[in-house]
Amino acid sequence: MPQNSPVITEEEKDLIIGRNAVSEALKSGREVDTLFVAKGDRSGSIGMLMGLARDKGAVVKEVDRRKLDAMCGGANHQGVAARAAAHSYSSIEDIIKNAEEKGEDAFVIICDEIEDPHNLGAIIRTADACGAHGVIIPKRRGVSLTYAVGKVSAGALEYVPVARVSNLPSAIDELKEKGFWVYAADMDGKPWNEQDYSGKVALVIGSEGKGISRLVKEKCDFTVSLPMRGKINSLNASVAAGILMYEVIRNR
Amino acid sequence: MPQNSPVITEEEKDLIIGRNAVSEALKSGREVDTLFVAKGDRSGSIGMLMGLARDKGAVVKEVDRRKLDAMCGGANHQGVAARAAAHSYSSIEDIIKNAEEKGEDAFVIICDEIEDPHNLGAIIRTADACGAHGVIIPKRRGVSLTYAVGKVSAGALEYVPVARVSNLPSAIDELKEKGFWVYAADMDGKPWNEQDYSGKVALVIGSEGKGISRLVKEKCDFTVSLPMRGKINSLNASVAAGILMYEVIRNR
Repeated sequence: MPQNSPVITEEEKDLIIGRNAVSEALKSGREVDTLFVAKGDRSGSIGMLMGLARDKGAVVKEVDRRKLDAMCGGANHQGVAARAAAHSYSSIEDIIKNAEEKGEDAFVIICDEIEDPHNLGAIIRTADACGAHGVIIPKRRGVSLTYAVGKVSAGALEYVPVARVSNLPSAIDELKEKGFWVYAADMDGKPWNEQDYSGKVALVIGSEGKGISRLVKEKCDFTVSLPMRGKINSLNASVAAGILMYEVIRNR
Repeated sequence: MPQNSPVITEEEKDLIIGRNAVSEALKSGREVDTLFVAKGDRSGSIGMLMGLARDKGAVVKEVDRRKLDAMCGGANHQGVAARAAAHSYSSIEDIIKNAEEKGEDAFVIICDEIEDPHNLGAIIRTADACGAHGVIIPKRRGVSLTYAVGKVSAGALEYVPVARVSNLPSAIDELKEKGFWVYAADMDGKPWNEQDYSGKVALVIGSEGKGISRLVKEKCDFTVSLPMRGKINSLNASVAAGILMYEVIRNR
């Protein structure tokens, strides 16, 4: 890349910068994922934009002004920027309805704070391929449906409903009330190929660095593990998810 | 990222730029993956550097001078640059010896022109985790052992021998002579979970865009397929590789 060319990272392609642009995006019905506001800045229309964003279900994040400067590559952001989502979000109800309409036992993947767009995109792609009915991600923490995720999903984002929830443990409670069995992919469980996966299945995949968080783990009914025969003690999150998703399919 | 900051991509971190630096790298015993030479330029020491690189087993590529300018981010390359490898290469013999020393049936993964460092890195990581004995990649085309691959492998590159061969079909012939069964991961095969994988196994994974090349496919003994139940007709290469690698392990 030649020096001094404008620096556009994968992250910034879906960034909407400045008050007018953000206001237009929020009013137009375009799916807005996150609103970024310079810390402490409530001047002019910023308060109104925050309200609009919250009404639309977007996450509002206050960030250091220098971080916002860097994110916007030096463009004049006037204290606000927004990240558009590559696709609209579904709800847990939509996902369950998706399974019912197909007359199948529901199968959902829960991503507990997956951070790498490559992983979330590949998980959504595998969910489509194996016939899973949807993916659930948390509203805060972890990557959301950015353009990078959409690209890696190879188009699967158009077909796999993704629900974004405020609280994963509550979402798991909701699934359990609806008859789901919840499986944590973690180190200390039953070998992946000795577990029964019949009925409605929710498979929980942990984040790249930290695995499954404690509060989520406590809600799970079973833990399943892949054998680790080498020197490195974990797999890439989307690879582990893929192996387990096809194991669920084999059981059906 | 602030504007006008130096642009260093993942690719460039392992780039050695200019005649002296390249000459030092080639003489020092540092593993050099590829030597890039500006098209038609044979001035000064360039011919000598090309000879040195070939002697060390590096690939020599002539590239358009403007492409070289862009790769080097505007630095004064004097017509040459080299990409260092993140790890030294092994041979097919090393991989087979690795299996014999463990008293196991050899299990190797053949990557047919995988282009994305994320995929090759994740495949090497999964190879370590499932106890495979090595990975084979082609010398030309496809990504080699760049620093990005090393990073994605999460350290597995230190433990999994990777052989780089001039010709994949010949390498497959060599494996078959040594008693391997060769399995192509492709669309038109037997369901992945109905295949027997006993004995020495070589699993061939195709490139992201084109799948397995015709000449390689013709050499394979079996084709195994993962069911595609959704709208997208393929999986991410490293996810497909992971599912099949753990299927081989389950059979053992």
